[in-house]
Amino acid sequence: MLPGTAAKSDLPVDPTDPVALARALIRAPSVTPDAEPAMARVAELLTAAGYHVERLDFSDHGPRVANLYARIGTEGPNLCFAGHVDVVPPGDAGEWRHDPFSGALADGLLYGRGAVDMKGAVAASIAAAVRFGAPPAGSLSFLITGDEEGPALDGTVRVVEALKARGEKVDACILGEPTNPAAMGDAFKIGRRGSLSGVLTVEGKQGHVAYPHLADNPIPRLLRLLGALTAAPLDEGSEFFPPSNLEVISVDVGNPVFNLIPAKAEARFNVRFNDHFTLASLEAEIRRRLDATGLAHRLAFRPGASQSFRTEPGPFVEMVRAAVAAVTGRVPEASTSGGTSDARFIKDLCPVIEFGLVGRTMHQVDEACPVDDIVALTAIYERIIQSFFAR
Amino acid sequence: MLPGTAAKSDLPVDPTDPVALARALIRAPSVTPDAEPAMARVAELLTAAGYHVERLDFSDHGPRVANLYARIGTEGPNLCFAGHVDVVPPGDAGEWRHDPFSGALADGLLYGRGAVDMKGAVAASIAAAVRFGAPPAGSLSFLITGDEEGPALDGTVRVVEALKARGEKVDACILGEPTNPAAMGDAFKIGRRGSLSGVLTVEGKQGHVAYPHLADNPIPRLLRLLGALTAAPLDEGSEFFPPSNLEVISVDVGNPVFNLIPAKAEARFNVRFNDHFTLASLEAEIRRRLDATGLAHRLAFRPGASQSFRTEPGPFVEMVRAAVAAVTGRVPEASTSGGTSDARFIKDLCPVIEFGLVGRTMHQVDEACPVDDIVALTAIYERIIQSFFAR
Repeated sequence: MLPGTAAKSDLPVDPTDPVALARALIRAPSVTPDAEPAMARVAELLTAAGYHVERLDFSDHGPRVANLYARIGTEGPNLCFAGHVDVVPPGDAGEWRHDPFSGALADGLLYGRGAVDMKGAVAASIAAAVRFGAPPAGSLSFLITGDEEGPALDGTVRVVEALKARGEKVDACILGEPTNPAAMGDAFKIGRRGSLSGVLTVEGKQGHVAYPHLADNPIPRLLRLLGALTAAPLDEGSEFFPPSNLEVISVDVGNPVFNLIPAKAEARFNVRFNDHFTLASLEAEIRRRLDATGLAHRLAFRPGASQSFRTEPGPFVEMVRAAVAAVTGRVPEASTSGGTSDARFIKDLCPVIEFGLVGRTMHQVDEACPVDDIVALTAIYERIIQSFFAR
Repeated sequence: MLPGTAAKSDLPVDPTDPVALARALIRAPSVTPDAEPAMARVAELLTAAGYHVERLDFSDHGPRVANLYARIGTEGPNLCFAGHVDVVPPGDAGEWRHDPFSGALADGLLYGRGAVDMKGAVAASIAAAVRFGAPPAGSLSFLITGDEEGPALDGTVRVVEALKARGEKVDACILGEPTNPAAMGDAFKIGRRGSLSGVLTVEGKQGHVAYPHLADNPIPRLLRLLGALTAAPLDEGSEFFPPSNLEVISVDVGNPVFNLIPAKAEARFNVRFNDHFTLASLEAEIRRRLDATGLAHRLAFRPGASQSFRTEPGPFVEMVRAAVAAVTGRVPEASTSGGTSDARFIKDLCPVIEFGLVGRTMHQVDEACPVDDIVALTAIYERIIQSFFAR
């Protein structure tokens, strides 16, 4: 068949073949937040595999976000695979070796936007679940969102709320975000640091630079406040977490001329913090450091902050570790480093562990994944399913 | 005559009446750099008064800038009045009590853009010179530009170059910029500080805020460099000048998101400096302070820097001081404070002293000047002319 002679999502696909599944999902464009084509494909595949598929779309904070919850079985325990089918934009498609939405295979690699983050992992989880079939006692489920790369206000957070509200019981969740820095088996994530952003503003009085006594330059005060904010480390790390870290990520005045003292100066910062702090205690520490300067300022914390969390050591953690080790021959590190993910929402529903592909090319031009990694990830997910229902 | 029934610049005006002259100039719009209507009016008035008027327009750096040099007499000594007829824009004309280009008289005040900066002073100097007539021995001259408020690249600087190139001898110059902070007789300027601007840039490596070890945030380095730049005063002032002062006038990163460490951070600064420094020694001091940190950075000084200058104490300074004191009853301060002016160019031609109106409303909505101040300034200029040619 010539390219373009049929709708890409109509191509037939073997639901137990994770590479074919991943290619089909890459071919269903889903640049965040418009993930409908890929979500429809997932719904179709799971329905065909005997799952009860529910769409839980929300549009309270912007355009409609496609979400899905699917379950096979009605009894507990319920093991859930979570993920997202939306992807970040490809940038200039002309810079890619292969069309970012073609799912090209070359030299043992599957190319395409989402190959590692995370259509490849969604495909692996579907293939593993379809191979396993309906659990003999218990349920398998999927929680897939179309808004993880965007604002994430109408995505997983809303599905988790809806499931909790109706008493849906989920016992454990695997989130397939790319967790391996360099090779399969490097690491799985048992938690994430929290994230808090803020804006620090200093007001002064505008005036001519030749008459500084008639003006009040806010910049020196802002520099002193930032000095106080960053003078000492927040902590030295904890048993399971790296040290908390504050980064000043922008300072802006926007004064276009050289003869004017500006009226206002602003700085933005982000903190990634561990379990030494709650959100409240971190906000208090930041206020304390700024107030200690005695300098007038305004501080506004941004909405969307998250606290750190961690899945307790125990059988679930050991089950994932053992499955990774059995397939890759390597004992993965239990990590809490890196950015935030939808695990920050899922943790309110059940224990969650993240394990997926190798993240090196995520969000980049020529995002690509070794076919062997997708095969290995499918085998790991199968082992996790088998161990879970063998308990 | 009804308003608008004749070109405003065609209204007849008594050249010895400084208030009528100032009104005529305000009515000839000349928002920088398009000063032609006002310049044509000055040329017409001086020609009628017997001056040899030359237009020295230049357009090497942008639109044509109107300039004029006019002289009566061929012998020395040559006393020159300098000034500009271009004005800053009026802003929202609707906010003005009176049309900014109508030259309205109300409650003893002359309203209009340029009333104090500096069509009022240009009018006073023309009226004083016309009253005095041709010097019995020596020359009177005018150096008027149409680009003092703009880039000032094709204005006074070029006229001074042209006059020097042909050996035109000017012995002393009065520049009519507003020099009195609050009342006539407050101050005249015998010099100005220099001005040097620079841009300090720090390059880093962009990256996700959750992985600071994979990025290189330029902001902390920029903050340390700015700290080093501003830690100690440049000097404590000198006999005739206030202390040199460095102001950081902008810091800019422009990072719109909270999860990204930026690749670049930039700061802009301006120094107003006294005769402790030459331009070269100040640049060296700034480089020394930044280099002492050992932190990588780029430093670029902006074109258009100027060095400080001062007119030496002596008969010319005493003549101006005495004329101001005789008319106002107050002994004016010999000041070197404030911003730059075209005096920085004229000083290369001859000794220059600045004395004009009260600057309080300059560049503001409802710029206005007491009629009495224009009358007083004319009397002061007349006394200076008389003293100069009585020597």
